[in-house]
Amino acid sequence: MKNTFGHHITYTLFGESHGEAIGIVIDGLPSGIKINQELMQMQMDKRKPKGKISTQRHEEDKVEFISGYFNNHTTGSPLTIQIKNNNTKSSDYEAIRYRVRPAHADYTADEKYHGFQDYRGGGHFSGRLTAPIVAAGSIALQLLNTLGIEIGTHIKQCKDIKDDNFSNDEGQLLNEIKLVNQKDFALLNETYHKEMIDLIEDAAKNHDSIGGILESAILNLPTGIGEPFFDSIESTLSHLLFSIPAIKGVEFGLGFDFANKYGSEVNDPFYYDGKVKTRTNNNGGINGGISNGMPIIIRTVVKPTPSIYKPQETIHLKTHESEVLEINGRHDPAILHRARVVVDSVLAIGILDLILERNACESINFKEETL
Amino acid sequence: MKNTFGHHITYTLFGESHGEAIGIVIDGLPSGIKINQELMQMQMDKRKPKGKISTQRHEEDKVEFISGYFNNHTTGSPLTIQIKNNNTKSSDYEAIRYRVRPAHADYTADEKYHGFQDYRGGGHFSGRLTAPIVAAGSIALQLLNTLGIEIGTHIKQCKDIKDDNFSNDEGQLLNEIKLVNQKDFALLNETYHKEMIDLIEDAAKNHDSIGGILESAILNLPTGIGEPFFDSIESTLSHLLFSIPAIKGVEFGLGFDFANKYGSEVNDPFYYDGKVKTRTNNNGGINGGISNGMPIIIRTVVKPTPSIYKPQETIHLKTHESEVLEINGRHDPAILHRARVVVDSVLAIGILDLILERNACESINFKEETL
Amino acid sequence: MKNTFGHHITYTLFGESHGEAIGIVIDGLPSGIKINQELMQMQMDKRKPKGKISTQRHEEDKVEFISGYFNNHTTGSPLTIQIKNNNTKSSDYEAIRYRVRPAHADYTADEKYHGFQDYRGGGHFSGRLTAPIVAAGSIALQLLNTLGIEIGTHIKQCKDIKDDNFSNDEGQLLNEIKLVNQKDFALLNETYHKEMIDLIEDAAKNHDSIGGILESAILNLPTGIGEPFFDSIESTLSHLLFSIPAIKGVEFGLGFDFANKYGSEVNDPFYYDGKVKTRTNNNGGINGGISNGMPIIIRTVVKPTPSIYKPQETIHLKTHESEVLEINGRHDPAILHRARVVVDSVLAIGILDLILERNACESINFKEETL
Amino acid sequence: MKNTFGHHITYTLFGESHGEAIGIVIDGLPSGIKINQELMQMQMDKRKPKGKISTQRHEEDKVEFISGYFNNHTTGSPLTIQIKNNNTKSSDYEAIRYRVRPAHADYTADEKYHGFQDYRGGGHFSGRLTAPIVAAGSIALQLLNTLGIEIGTHIKQCKDIKDDNFSNDEGQLLNEIKLVNQKDFALLNETYHKEMIDLIEDAAKNHDSIGGILESAILNLPTGIGEPFFDSIESTLSHLLFSIPAIKGVEFGLGFDFANKYGSEVNDPFYYDGKVKTRTNNNGGINGGISNGMPIIIRTVVKPTPSIYKPQETIHLKTHESEVLEINGRHDPAILHRARVVVDSVLAIGILDLILERNACESINFKEETL
Repeated sequence: MKNTFGHHITYTLFGESHGEAIGIVIDGLPSGIKINQELMQMQMDKRKPKGKISTQRHEEDKVEFISGYFNNHTTGSPLTIQIKNNNTKSSDYEAIRYRVRPAHADYTADEKYHGFQDYRGGGHFSGRLTAPIVAAGSIALQLLNTLGIEIGTHIKQCKDIKDDNFSNDEGQLLNEIKLVNQKDFALLNETYHKEMIDLIEDAAKNHDSIGGILESAILNLPTGIGEPFFDSIESTLSHLLFSIPAIKGVEFGLGFDFANKYGSEVNDPFYYDGKVKTRTNNNGGINGGISNGMPIIIRTVVKPTPSIYKPQETIHLKTHESEVLEINGRHDPAILHRARVVVDSVLAIGILDLILERNACESINFKEETL
Repeated sequence: MKNTFGHHITYTLFGESHGEAIGIVIDGLPSGIKINQELMQMQMDKRKPKGKISTQRHEEDKVEFISGYFNNHTTGSPLTIQIKNNNTKSSDYEAIRYRVRPAHADYTADEKYHGFQDYRGGGHFSGRLTAPIVAAGSIALQLLNTLGIEIGTHIKQCKDIKDDNFSNDEGQLLNEIKLVNQKDFALLNETYHKEMIDLIEDAAKNHDSIGGILESAILNLPTGIGEPFFDSIESTLSHLLFSIPAIKGVEFGLGFDFANKYGSEVNDPFYYDGKVKTRTNNNGGINGGISNGMPIIIRTVVKPTPSIYKPQETIHLKTHESEVLEINGRHDPAILHRARVVVDSVLAIGILDLILERNACESINFKEETL
Repeated sequence: MKNTFGHHITYTLFGESHGEAIGIVIDGLPSGIKINQELMQMQMDKRKPKGKISTQRHEEDKVEFISGYFNNHTTGSPLTIQIKNNNTKSSDYEAIRYRVRPAHADYTADEKYHGFQDYRGGGHFSGRLTAPIVAAGSIALQLLNTLGIEIGTHIKQCKDIKDDNFSNDEGQLLNEIKLVNQKDFALLNETYHKEMIDLIEDAAKNHDSIGGILESAILNLPTGIGEPFFDSIESTLSHLLFSIPAIKGVEFGLGFDFANKYGSEVNDPFYYDGKVKTRTNNNGGINGGISNGMPIIIRTVVKPTPSIYKPQETIHLKTHESEVLEINGRHDPAILHRARVVVDSVLAIGILDLILERNACESINFKEETL
Repeated sequence: MKNTFGHHITYTLFGESHGEAIGIVIDGLPSGIKINQELMQMQMDKRKPKGKISTQRHEEDKVEFISGYFNNHTTGSPLTIQIKNNNTKSSDYEAIRYRVRPAHADYTADEKYHGFQDYRGGGHFSGRLTAPIVAAGSIALQLLNTLGIEIGTHIKQCKDIKDDNFSNDEGQLLNEIKLVNQKDFALLNETYHKEMIDLIEDAAKNHDSIGGILESAILNLPTGIGEPFFDSIESTLSHLLFSIPAIKGVEFGLGFDFANKYGSEVNDPFYYDGKVKTRTNNNGGINGGISNGMPIIIRTVVKPTPSIYKPQETIHLKTHESEVLEINGRHDPAILHRARVVVDSVLAIGILDLILERNACESINFKEETL
């Protein structure tokens, strides 16, 4: 459905990087939710560019509720979130209007929209569109927190520097999630902080960019969430994750490391300890697309930001002549640290949708009546 | 939508491994298609178990058209494909009814369906459900072939043995796709054939199983296919790929290897050579979720089959006592070689849907009238 | 979505009148429902042709469960219902292959499907396709009955002979619903039975057909069901009702009679009598698209069956020559008495979907946590 | 989908009568459309209240494009239309906060949203929400006009005064559509103008309201538009029409008058006159849910506006005491003349969606390749 996602609560995204505003319409929220605006602001702040490791475009990103919020509670009708674009420097883009940036959506947007797209700052394809996603995700997160579900993401790898892994122990994992959720630069082990920052700043100095890997955990998800065949947890979450610009790979549990293993090494044995658990969690909490009660473990790879200041080879769209592109504009040498909250947001949106799907189905106790 | 996928042509999957039949309803096919039954049979054959490297359950997998096919052409109304289950040995499953197989959907299905699921042979979660997907996919493939689009998948890695990569040259790639599409055991380089077979047979002898990585290519996809924000090519294809049992990771282009690179190393420079191309294809033919005209490159990891004959630790669902599980039934020591055609099928289904989405939008030449 | 309906429980219809089988895939049913097969059979029987007032095509209409039903309960995976076509006389249709029946779908199907449609007996457009709808509807009805919701339909008008109206008293209405649900020819007042039968038999003798009006009531629907803006109760139910062949008008409450009234005459005043009620029910239990707790009242008009034996003017599709059409085949002089159970079925399907929509939204008690 | 409609172009409606703004997000529009803002304004003007026969709330209804419009053309990404609410007098509603207006959505909204709804001026249930529908509909209308399709609606009946019928002659009908589309008070025959206005003014003087019937025609719709089973033209259009507040009945062609007829009287005989036509058009251009090339004829009944100044019986929501309600606020004694453009708008939206559905299916010439 293009810019709409969700079966129960639907999210419709709109806006362009240099247009009047960006926003999202959230339909299907229960009435009576007092939105945790502190949480929303905290999430929005995590996404904001910071210091030398981010773009110098600084937007206030003030979230306005245009509809659906009344007397400080959701009304039950569509909640429209709008964020004005203020700090735009569109002139930066006129010079490169027909010089498409390699690895960016400039060329494909032009092909798709026949030149009518808003090309300024990536238009509708800008990472800026993730701001309303984060605002919306914070509401989903708030609702999941009510159910005791916790979501967190850390920077597992920044280029070749690796953070620790999430713990296999659920108690420990809860602490880790809470820890990283407090941080702007989300690491489990602060030892690597300076190294990573240096790496990003060096890349910036070299007019280059870097990527990395984010690792996410969803804790306390009840069993039985996820739908066969096409709406498995993996299908639903990957669908959302791959909609985030720059994500080029998604894996669950062991992921690509499964390739090197024997079944006997990676099948997670069941045991009982107050509740059903597995001794290992190679499957990342998902069997047959459905939650088994263990933590959901997801890794996503973020490619290096395509907008770099180094001269690059490209063509002119009108003449097809080869050109050397030197871009202006304000760009991120890395987006890992900002993307992590976008990842948290879409995970919250996806998981909440699957929970509501299960709840709809389970909502009427037909069984007692009919068995 | 659980068991239904697709916006234009919709596919609704039904059936259980040991029920009367499995099948799929395909709605929205144009009328007048003479289905290429030779292609359909060829695809079904690729999925069939073979020799010692596969399950000994041999099903005829005869595809019946229950509706929507008349005078040897599609009618335009729903095409219902049904495949009878014949070779079922349900007694194998009674013994392990409450002894859930590690890493399989037995436990999660029980949690989700409260014990009412058809547990025999994995029921609705069986890999057998991919048979109607392959039949349906062969129709999508036929339609894509009409447009000049080719899809192929090879076994990139079988445990630690690696096949060659697909070529970066489009002409060469076309030959490679045609080559692997002829093969039962899809390798680019036959050198590795015996090694891989030995590995699988050894695993079988050891009552164990192995996994690996599949690499797919989609050639000649026009530019401008894919939708922002939520229906990017990556979102659409990963959604489908993760619905295939045992797939635990999906990546596009360089995928997880992007993590170690500088932007300047991996941004694909544009040049013009009769059409717009990129010098490298690290982005796997996709920029901003939309096709750029280069080959789409996808890798998926297939975990080792969870059903192994080795004794495994599990619990009894009723008593929660720990038990040693020794399964009977007929299982695959590896499914890589069978899964590849399922991957081709869902890729065809997903790409066709995106093409039709674009076509709907472009179908009326509003521009000439309005500019 | 063409042949699929429903957000929570989805129904995918397939088949043609003279094909191998017709059927429906029902996805999203909770697991553990013991289907009331007596109720299902009773509903199927109401739809069957009877005596001289119906077609002489007699089908056994045996409902088979192909998937999703195991140990006498729903499994939670798709329930596939299939009904074989046995009593087909396709030769009747060869003669009129290109002589399109006036007011039937013959011509429009040919235009839509470019001649590839299964034209025998109306193909996919046959009233026969309502048989799986009735089977599916009986399951929805069973679930609604569990919630205390009752649905009934009577023949309000058969040509110019009018039955009594449903009572405005809820207790009396419950009795009336139970009464008409027992009947094959659903009248509130038996006084009109013979007159109506005579009228239909006379029409049959004259090689003609007649139509009429069905009136339906839904009792005990809780308040707050229905969604703004596009999924009002009226929108949802009319969408389904107009999918039934031969339905050409739908109205709620006073319906078209509202046109002649002043607001002060028809606004239903509220009062309290243990629960909130309205003194009159001109709005048919719906305000702003949402249930107000009063009975839902719906009337649908069924046009005279288009297949009549009288000679009719038509054209030959190939030559465009005018022709006099004299059809064979076996047709109904009236379908009012058979259509009423189809109406009940789609009402049950629609109302259940809206209830599940509300339940999904209400399923998590966010409010206590957030207020 | 609650507040979202459409498969190809989707429309997501948001806002409340007294909130900051109302609006609609339109996703899936082709890029490069220069929106006919003159047509949009003309349509918006038709919806505006006028003189003594309408509410005294006068809103400027200035349409702003928040996204998706760039360099005076659609970009292809979501077009967001926003209309500010300026002339609100919310104090009128505080007095009747718990005194629910009979026949209005006040009570049902309170039941659905548990008191959290924005109750001011009907909130999300206000007729004011039709303003963005009209803006969106004008774009759909523009695209349909490009294809030669014309839509028009006249006031067929205002209480008991009846306008003439649309002509059965297509040439004449085209003129009539053009005629009524120029008018604020859309009548075919001006003879009835004064009578109707007097009637409405009298109702206003008496603190009462009236309703009536609108008749619409869609001309030049190609054959083969509409989908079986659930997306017939009737299903699609009625779904949309019943989402308009105050619509309580919808009929096609002869509609409820079919009840009194023999099949032989109303089956529309085919003949050929350059193209296939029918001698009569009792079926309103639709056979089997699909267009047959004749004009689509639709009638909708608009109930008398529920907000009247006469004292009415109601209850207090908190105390359940009976009360006499005397409302303030600014209300319409009739909305027929304003609703007609809303009807035109949803018809345009629905028909365009069905056309795009057909186009998607037909977009690839599979047939030549496969036959």
